[in-house]
Amino acid sequence: MSKFDTYFLMKAEDVIEYAKEKLDIFDEGAELECKEIGDGNINYIFRVWDKNSEKSVIIKQAGYTARISDAFKLSTDRNRIEAEILRLEDKLAPGLVPVVYKYDDIMNCCSMEDLSDHVIMRSALIERKKFPLFADHITTFMVNTLLLTTDVVLEHKEKKAMVKSFINPELCEITEDLVYTEPFNDYKKRNDVFPPNLEWVIQELYQDKELRLEAAKLKFEFMTNAQALLHGDLHTGSIFIKPDSTKIIDPEFAFYGPIGYDTGNIVANLIFAWANADAAIGDEAARVDYINWLEKTIIEVVDMFCDKFDKAWKENVTEIFAKEEGFYEWYLHTILRDTAAVTGLELCRRIVGLAHVKDITSIDDENARLRAERICLTAAKSYIKKRESYDNGADFLAALKEAVDKFPR
Amino acid sequence: MSKFDTYFLMKAEDVIEYAKEKLDIFDEGAELECKEIGDGNINYIFRVWDKNSEKSVIIKQAGYTARISDAFKLSTDRNRIEAEILRLEDKLAPGLVPVVYKYDDIMNCCSMEDLSDHVIMRSALIERKKFPLFADHITTFMVNTLLLTTDVVLEHKEKKAMVKSFINPELCEITEDLVYTEPFNDYKKRNDVFPPNLEWVIQELYQDKELRLEAAKLKFEFMTNAQALLHGDLHTGSIFIKPDSTKIIDPEFAFYGPIGYDTGNIVANLIFAWANADAAIGDEAARVDYINWLEKTIIEVVDMFCDKFDKAWKENVTEIFAKEEGFYEWYLHTILRDTAAVTGLELCRRIVGLAHVKDITSIDDENARLRAERICLTAAKSYIKKRESYDNGADFLAALKEAVDKFPR
Repeated sequence: MSKFDTYFLMKAEDVIEYAKEKLDIFDEGAELECKEIGDGNINYIFRVWDKNSEKSVIIKQAGYTARISDAFKLSTDRNRIEAEILRLEDKLAPGLVPVVYKYDDIMNCCSMEDLSDHVIMRSALIERKKFPLFADHITTFMVNTLLLTTDVVLEHKEKKAMVKSFINPELCEITEDLVYTEPFNDYKKRNDVFPPNLEWVIQELYQDKELRLEAAKLKFEFMTNAQALLHGDLHTGSIFIKPDSTKIIDPEFAFYGPIGYDTGNIVANLIFAWANADAAIGDEAARVDYINWLEKTIIEVVDMFCDKFDKAWKENVTEIFAKEEGFYEWYLHTILRDTAAVTGLELCRRIVGLAHVKDITSIDDENARLRAERICLTAAKSYIKKRESYDNGADFLAALKEAVDKFPR
Repeated sequence: MSKFDTYFLMKAEDVIEYAKEKLDIFDEGAELECKEIGDGNINYIFRVWDKNSEKSVIIKQAGYTARISDAFKLSTDRNRIEAEILRLEDKLAPGLVPVVYKYDDIMNCCSMEDLSDHVIMRSALIERKKFPLFADHITTFMVNTLLLTTDVVLEHKEKKAMVKSFINPELCEITEDLVYTEPFNDYKKRNDVFPPNLEWVIQELYQDKELRLEAAKLKFEFMTNAQALLHGDLHTGSIFIKPDSTKIIDPEFAFYGPIGYDTGNIVANLIFAWANADAAIGDEAARVDYINWLEKTIIEVVDMFCDKFDKAWKENVTEIFAKEEGFYEWYLHTILRDTAAVTGLELCRRIVGLAHVKDITSIDDENARLRAERICLTAAKSYIKKRESYDNGADFLAALKEAVDKFPR
């Protein structure tokens, strides 16, 4: 009998006991300390460390309701999904996710590698840190976790079992609402637009019927296209980074969806970093230097993804009909098309919707923020409407540059 | 305790006992008889009737292996899927499927309405029976079971639970192989081509790279597009019919897939009936008369589907973004496109692949059969390659007529 035989929401002192009793990490005489370090909206995240050694662990526990509000009920199955996905991702893309030590389906908690020596990438980009290995790391992560879970590679019955295992209704609903509907149709009246841009947003997004129709098509594509096992929330806030290491965390939105959903999120969030740098770095030389690195990274993310995808395809394809002449080119084209669309959707929803990004909200100068938002939204409209015309990284950057040209500093 | 507490494969005498003990259908003094009447490849189908009354029942039991061969292992979960789907279809399209009396998850059997007063539609069409209500019945069935299970209508979390519940890997694999691969790439060397057409098939199907590429794209669409809860095997052999009643049976292939898979199967199998009538009715007046009815039916199936789809859409749409201007037209267009593609795929696979249809194999005259096959395959290539250009029933019939013109009698 153990107090952890029945689920309850742990406090820091419980977590210390839990770590001693359930985990094989700390030495006999360890002096453990624990702190709740979560700043997300949904789960409780504890760091436990031994004062007498370097050893530490992260324990993430899911409640029956969201951390921020009891009104927001969520299945604790998300914790199982997260643990299983992290283990799978570690197998497919070794070293690019935290190691899972233990998943506990009674306590609904997952014990995993402590990444306190890494920083959240979004914050690091706002602090103008450069990560020359990021494009390489993230493209390996995406190609391996995405291509290798498609019908191109997986035996189809096994793939269907995975689809079933990772059906994720509640977290998909969040995306369907926040990303695929509300930026274009504020029917829940919970959008949060930077006031000086309100009229502009009404005209450019809500009243653009062509854009709304394309968003509607994309929403159905998102809800029906079980292409690959996605991370499902792959923005720079879900990435722990240091110069020589990239770790992708928080896959609780994982489900089978279109590959472009992950790739597009990465591109869009690099564009947010770009917009922040462009708006907030006063010194021109410093600005040009940092922006050059970001632009190079945007291009590399797309082009290295394509190169590695090509290589991984050749090495791993098993489906006989995926070897038909012309099929690979068609398949990659659909991914780049979806990448462009999601780049646009993510740019819109983070500026217009409920959940903002610090890259934009931290721009202090009102005119600079106004301009940054309009650049992002203008580029977004191109990414969505002209999504068939993006073939490489340069195409993605060109659409951003075109938008910039419309809003002289 | 009952002998039916543990699964075993029943013989006719067991089924009589089962009907007495488990079903509330027959009277106290009933004198039951039973016969195994299955002629399919997979399950055991028993008819039980009372010699002293009109009462009867069908009991369908699934084995761990297929009826035709122990080598072919299948999950008995198909029996649960069939029973659940029949009940759901009866709710969505009342009167168009047999009523399920009992599903028994221990004995893996389903007891249902006896339809012995109906006949299998494929045979009835070969006997030149007309069913003036068929187009009306089948379009009601398809619109109701398909549209009402999409994200257009269903709450999206509920729909995802349905997707999960009806993941159907083994039976989908049969379709992926037989319909979506082997007609164009005989890599399993189990195709069965009518010998005089072999060279022609090699050239027109196996060596048509454009066709193979389109089939490959469609295969991935079939494997990934969780649009609606399909019947999954909706040909004229899965339909029991009499002049005033149509009953759709055998939904064990059901899963979430593209709507066009069901609609296209109906169109293709009407074309097989057309090809049979065209080849085998000697008397010209009789031939013209029957063919006119079939052609009218083909057109009606497509056009009544569209009309009812439109009406049902207006009455049932719940997804706010499905109400966007232009969205309905786009959605219906994708269904007609997929319908055309599947019409073509089904035409190919039944002529070239492992599983033939009696409409074609029963054409005794070798030259007439040769011509019928070439007409079907030539039309099939149009349906697949030009699938974007079918907007109504007349378009579907026109492609058939174009193919006919290429092969003068």
